[in-house]
Amino acid sequence: MGDDAAVRPSIHLNLFAFGCGHHAAAWRAPDSSVDRLGDIAYWEELARTAERGGLDAIFLADGQSVGLDGIDRGPRWFLEPITTLAALARATERIGLVTTVSSTFWTPFHAARQLAGLDHISGGRAGVNVVTSMTDEEARNHSMPALPGHAERYGRAEEFVSALTALWDSWPRSAILADADGAYVDTEQLRPVNHRGEWFDVAGPLNVPQPPQGRPVLFQAGASGPGRDLAARYAEGVYAVAWDLESARAYREDVRDRARRLGRDPDDVVVMPGLVTFVGATEAEARERQRALNELLPVEDSLRQLAFFVGTDTSGWELDAPVPPLPPLEEFTGPQGRYATVLRIIESKRPTVRELLGYLAAGGGHATFVGTPESVADEIERWVDAGAADGFNLMPPALPQGIEDFVDHVVPILQERGRFRRGYAGRTLRSHLAADVVPAG
Amino acid sequence: MGDDAAVRPSIHLNLFAFGCGHHAAAWRAPDSSVDRLGDIAYWEELARTAERGGLDAIFLADGQSVGLDGIDRGPRWFLEPITTLAALARATERIGLVTTVSSTFWTPFHAARQLAGLDHISGGRAGVNVVTSMTDEEARNHSMPALPGHAERYGRAEEFVSALTALWDSWPRSAILADADGAYVDTEQLRPVNHRGEWFDVAGPLNVPQPPQGRPVLFQAGASGPGRDLAARYAEGVYAVAWDLESARAYREDVRDRARRLGRDPDDVVVMPGLVTFVGATEAEARERQRALNELLPVEDSLRQLAFFVGTDTSGWELDAPVPPLPPLEEFTGPQGRYATVLRIIESKRPTVRELLGYLAAGGGHATFVGTPESVADEIERWVDAGAADGFNLMPPALPQGIEDFVDHVVPILQERGRFRRGYAGRTLRSHLAADVVPAG
Repeated sequence: MGDDAAVRPSIHLNLFAFGCGHHAAAWRAPDSSVDRLGDIAYWEELARTAERGGLDAIFLADGQSVGLDGIDRGPRWFLEPITTLAALARATERIGLVTTVSSTFWTPFHAARQLAGLDHISGGRAGVNVVTSMTDEEARNHSMPALPGHAERYGRAEEFVSALTALWDSWPRSAILADADGAYVDTEQLRPVNHRGEWFDVAGPLNVPQPPQGRPVLFQAGASGPGRDLAARYAEGVYAVAWDLESARAYREDVRDRARRLGRDPDDVVVMPGLVTFVGATEAEARERQRALNELLPVEDSLRQLAFFVGTDTSGWELDAPVPPLPPLEEFTGPQGRYATVLRIIESKRPTVRELLGYLAAGGGHATFVGTPESVADEIERWVDAGAADGFNLMPPALPQGIEDFVDHVVPILQERGRFRRGYAGRTLRSHLAADVVPAG
Repeated sequence: MGDDAAVRPSIHLNLFAFGCGHHAAAWRAPDSSVDRLGDIAYWEELARTAERGGLDAIFLADGQSVGLDGIDRGPRWFLEPITTLAALARATERIGLVTTVSSTFWTPFHAARQLAGLDHISGGRAGVNVVTSMTDEEARNHSMPALPGHAERYGRAEEFVSALTALWDSWPRSAILADADGAYVDTEQLRPVNHRGEWFDVAGPLNVPQPPQGRPVLFQAGASGPGRDLAARYAEGVYAVAWDLESARAYREDVRDRARRLGRDPDDVVVMPGLVTFVGATEAEARERQRALNELLPVEDSLRQLAFFVGTDTSGWELDAPVPPLPPLEEFTGPQGRYATVLRIIESKRPTVRELLGYLAAGGGHATFVGTPESVADEIERWVDAGAADGFNLMPPALPQGIEDFVDHVVPILQERGRFRRGYAGRTLRSHLAADVVPAG
């Protein structure tokens, strides 16, 4: 730890809890949690482990369909995230609780209410990752024949977020007088929303008084231009996808530039790339853990997942031949971030199809650190110090083991080096994201 | 306790938890819970008290607007009910958790998911009271200029419930194979929903596997013809409004007849009128409790509430004169049940305006029993034995005191008489509603 440790930024860590873990074959392992996915005690255990490690938040992704093409190959969704986080609020005391909400399929009044409710229930720990969804299958569960186009989805997302914030501001705490001889509420202080937009009309005010955080914390995960703009305009936390330090730095700089141009302090936007870690007592043990999970992966499954990522029929690809040429990013109409990652892996590693599948098997192209607790901590510091990240959204390949390993072995090293909090300084999610100083705890 | 005790039906009891209690002036009392409405621990305390009493369920009502005309006169909504019940699921072990969902403002996929999630989280204790909402103010929070008409709302409600049940049936538990060497799900067992209706298109299947109860329990509270039909067709529990035994019996018989005509066993529909109780060690103490709360009530508030119930400007009414004539039920376009009750009170009691306000102040015309634990228990038995109710939806005038009084003093008498369970026989809400036999516990 050098003399400049005091001025080096503290690191932010979220747990992205997903199924049996982010590795596509995690559920096939003999000790997997596949039978516990509907058991709230499993999720409580993950949240408590993350809280024991002092992580900023536990984050749940979401989707609006069963995912017919893939559900035979492994679990995706099980419990519903908002109700799950409401339960987790009472199993934890300090850790942030971040849900995903699709602005394409939710309306602002329901979302604003449930998120404000979650913020009350958790004492100020609610966050929401606003997404615009990805598939026609999801649209067909919500009275739409197909997914609206990218521009339409992002237009709706902008309006959705704007209505959310107006609703959260509409019933200030000070409006509650609770005067036993007079009024319960000073109606003069209620602020009508009167949002009339292209997608939603919302009169307001919200029927939930302003929650502890005022506004629950907004997260964004968009990789496209409009997604980055939305992040730069509103988000306090950004979940990024980056395979390597250079692309992470480019992404973070771009989001910070956009925020700066919108008049925001870029330091108010905490950028956290997804991070898959395989941690072992030795380098060899870590690699063995990775290999053991990869071993469980049926190759044709991975090939089909790849077909989804690249929007191309991969069934004729030869496993041990180089990856065939793919169209440039500009011609791809699906989720941009993941496709860009595939292109970057191909460009940087020139892999065979089989090798590419290996890179993608855990986390679909997110940064992957494999090694001892020290080497993983080193790499985390290196990314943060290089301006590539403000921290990471941890995507353990197998749960609960992956987060236990990280909390028990990597976190203490980061604490020792003065880069991560020992215990929480504040009680709200926003206070965790803001903390520049690492409390001694 | 007579020899026929063994064949007399067991009694069902729900706690309808609302704000500081159902009396309009409850929040003005010196010991009121007005400062705790946003504190989940308050709701946990209510749920635990109800569970200590062995009640079937705790029920939360809901509305989709702040209620601008009235919010100065007392609290209405605060926390959001579904997230609240998800938290309560982890503070309790056996009691049912019933939320309200508006079919006018919710879409089936979101509702089906969150209710299935709540059923998983609670281990099979979720229920939902489907309502069609009541005000234009609510509509304006959901991109509608005004509330749709009665027929349209009930058409939508029918379709909503039908889509909910199809979604809940769409991913049978047996479809999860979790075969480490094969498939996670047998996709052949997934049942597409393919609902194409007037109000919703839902492809399905749901992305939550079938919850412990299969289908969360459906409740209904409609008083109108279409509301009763909906109850008769789908509901396993009905929350009724009845001022006196005769109207309760007529309502219950009508719902049972409709169920019978639809081919259902009427005993599968548990009808629970709302019940306000003031319990005291003596008759005089009970009456004093009622008087003390009535004393806190600003008269002009009650008069304005009455105007809402009867759809008439009451501002010119003289407090100590008889209630002016009101139009017959057929001409009233608002909520039918409450209006019918007002007409019935007027017809049976010929009250002055002030007296009518007194009857309505707690619970808005629901049955009100005032007396000792013995006399309240007697009256409960009398209604059930007369076929006027299968039990009651308890609406304590002030909380938490009202439910503590009931659980500590009335429940033991009903248990002693063999009319109410001592401890739960089952673990699901449906098992509580089904129980004909009172377990010795």
